[in-house]
Amino acid sequence: MPENVTAPSSAVKTLKWIGGIDGYLSLIDQTLLPAELRDRECRTIGEVWESIRSLRVRGAPAIGIAAAYGVVLGIQPALGQSGAAALAKCQEVADYLATSRPTAVNLFWALDRMRRQAQAQAGQPAEEIARKLLAEARLIEEEDRAMCRAIGRAGAELLKDDSGVLTHCNAGGLATADYGTALAVFFAAHEQGKKLRVFADETRPLLQGARLTTWELMQRGLDVTLICDSMAAQVMREGRIQAVVVGADRIAANGDAANKIGTYGVAVQAKHHQIPFYVAAPSSTFDFSISSGDQIPIEHRAAEEITRGLGRQTAPEGVKVYNPAFDVTPGELVAAFITEKGVIRPPYTDQLRRVLATG
Amino acid sequence: MPENVTAPSSAVKTLKWIGGIDGYLSLIDQTLLPAELRDRECRTIGEVWESIRSLRVRGAPAIGIAAAYGVVLGIQPALGQSGAAALAKCQEVADYLATSRPTAVNLFWALDRMRRQAQAQAGQPAEEIARKLLAEARLIEEEDRAMCRAIGRAGAELLKDDSGVLTHCNAGGLATADYGTALAVFFAAHEQGKKLRVFADETRPLLQGARLTTWELMQRGLDVTLICDSMAAQVMREGRIQAVVVGADRIAANGDAANKIGTYGVAVQAKHHQIPFYVAAPSSTFDFSISSGDQIPIEHRAAEEITRGLGRQTAPEGVKVYNPAFDVTPGELVAAFITEKGVIRPPYTDQLRRVLATG
Repeated sequence: MPENVTAPSSAVKTLKWIGGIDGYLSLIDQTLLPAELRDRECRTIGEVWESIRSLRVRGAPAIGIAAAYGVVLGIQPALGQSGAAALAKCQEVADYLATSRPTAVNLFWALDRMRRQAQAQAGQPAEEIARKLLAEARLIEEEDRAMCRAIGRAGAELLKDDSGVLTHCNAGGLATADYGTALAVFFAAHEQGKKLRVFADETRPLLQGARLTTWELMQRGLDVTLICDSMAAQVMREGRIQAVVVGADRIAANGDAANKIGTYGVAVQAKHHQIPFYVAAPSSTFDFSISSGDQIPIEHRAAEEITRGLGRQTAPEGVKVYNPAFDVTPGELVAAFITEKGVIRPPYTDQLRRVLATG
Repeated sequence: MPENVTAPSSAVKTLKWIGGIDGYLSLIDQTLLPAELRDRECRTIGEVWESIRSLRVRGAPAIGIAAAYGVVLGIQPALGQSGAAALAKCQEVADYLATSRPTAVNLFWALDRMRRQAQAQAGQPAEEIARKLLAEARLIEEEDRAMCRAIGRAGAELLKDDSGVLTHCNAGGLATADYGTALAVFFAAHEQGKKLRVFADETRPLLQGARLTTWELMQRGLDVTLICDSMAAQVMREGRIQAVVVGADRIAANGDAANKIGTYGVAVQAKHHQIPFYVAAPSSTFDFSISSGDQIPIEHRAAEEITRGLGRQTAPEGVKVYNPAFDVTPGELVAAFITEKGVIRPPYTDQLRRVLATG
């Protein structure tokens, strides 16, 4: 490792399962960052649901992993009962966790894997089912870790030494098991000795860029500059940005990509300035069951996130608010997808399925 | 007036001079809005300078008016001295007030008018000079009031009934003597009985859209919806916007327009969605001494506006921040300028000068 590269902090882990089948889920409460780094222990499925809902854990891959462990928590009350009772409980808790947030497909993908694993254990005692489910959740976490590293390696090739890059929201280690998707690309390029100047959109309303992305990049020793979302176009116009890399919450078969609100606007601005716009995501984020982004449900969140989200009231009492949590960037605006199976270029309707649907 | 049109509130006045030549300037402290509507009395030139600097009074035309009254305050210490002493004082205070903010040309324009008025009084006693300067400041305020109404009338023709419009920052009554520039267009259309759905960008970092624009529109009974800056592109994509109208702080001879940071990004997004983008401004905002926007100085402001601007810390300690207060939208992206002398269409290098430089 070159001397100018800072080793990643080993102290920070987005989430971890503590103990065996009677254990619990511990996750960094991301709503407290950057002021405070504190773990939140989830010992009930209700606590997992609430942690996903209120964005204590967020980012499509991390939501999937948290939900998988949530299923293990959820069947704990059935330990000591019959295997059939445990299987029924598994279905029930998976259905419940699926209601926590509507847009990220990784949530449903992880829950489906847990359901299938449970079904494969039909006839087994409850404890054996729980052991297999815990192993499956751990596997989902480990696979995510490996996918993020692979995404980083694949994407780093796209970035030039001594260049400026922009990202929106947080698609970093905190959005995954660790290392991230979009930020993995920056981390890997940095580890290869490439000099990057990262611009991080603060990402209103919940400021994941200001609170989380800058924090992660500073922890790993990258050069990061915080800007307001409204400054991205100007920073591009000044020639400071050579590539945009963002994550995604769900990607349709044609390459339409849902991600944090504001991503689409950045994509439009990147196109205007002829800057390549990349989306980094593991294959679990691709949803081949939908042909276009029109079919992606968009979560709408409370007005207070905008009018009172930052410590004091910033708008008149009773003002009407529109607060979509995500937008969809059409595949036409995406220069390439960066996945654990490599960089995928248009035409997406052919290429995504060809690369990702096969082993 | 049709029954569904609410009369404008008469209680609210952006700024007013109280008394004669020994009077003072009273202005709404806009940093307290919308939580509190309180006047701030400025009895010294230092208080006027600070009020402009810290955005208690903001918006290019309002800054110009405040500075004009500031000159009257500034020569009060010379009352009772010679006319020559008063004239020297006038130059000194005008130079000082010009340092309060660098981008809005109306500031320099108003100060130049005050300087010329003072020079025309050479040989007069100090009291007479002060009377003429107060009359000139009042004239600047009255002219601004009339210009805003004319801008509203001219621009209202461009808006369709039952349509959606977007604005950025606050170019309303609070940015002018009253009625506004961009918002004047909405107010006038509303008074004509046109049904508008206004979307207001919150306008980070200082939230003039969330705090001031929504407040003004609600006061006058218009339908307004608050969004984050990052949502404008999505709202356009959903077909909710038929026109964008913004104000400006300085417009070059070729139509390049400096306005609040984020305006350029909105212009790019409007172009992508084939939505007309209009800039509303009085002729005092046009600066024919500069050929293009490259020559407009852009104010950069403190990092804390972004990292701590809203009541609590929202970014890691020591994070690098880039905080330009303005950007420049190229004339190519402007469908038309809405001025008190009518709507001006491209080519701007010819048309702006032809319409505005003549009486």
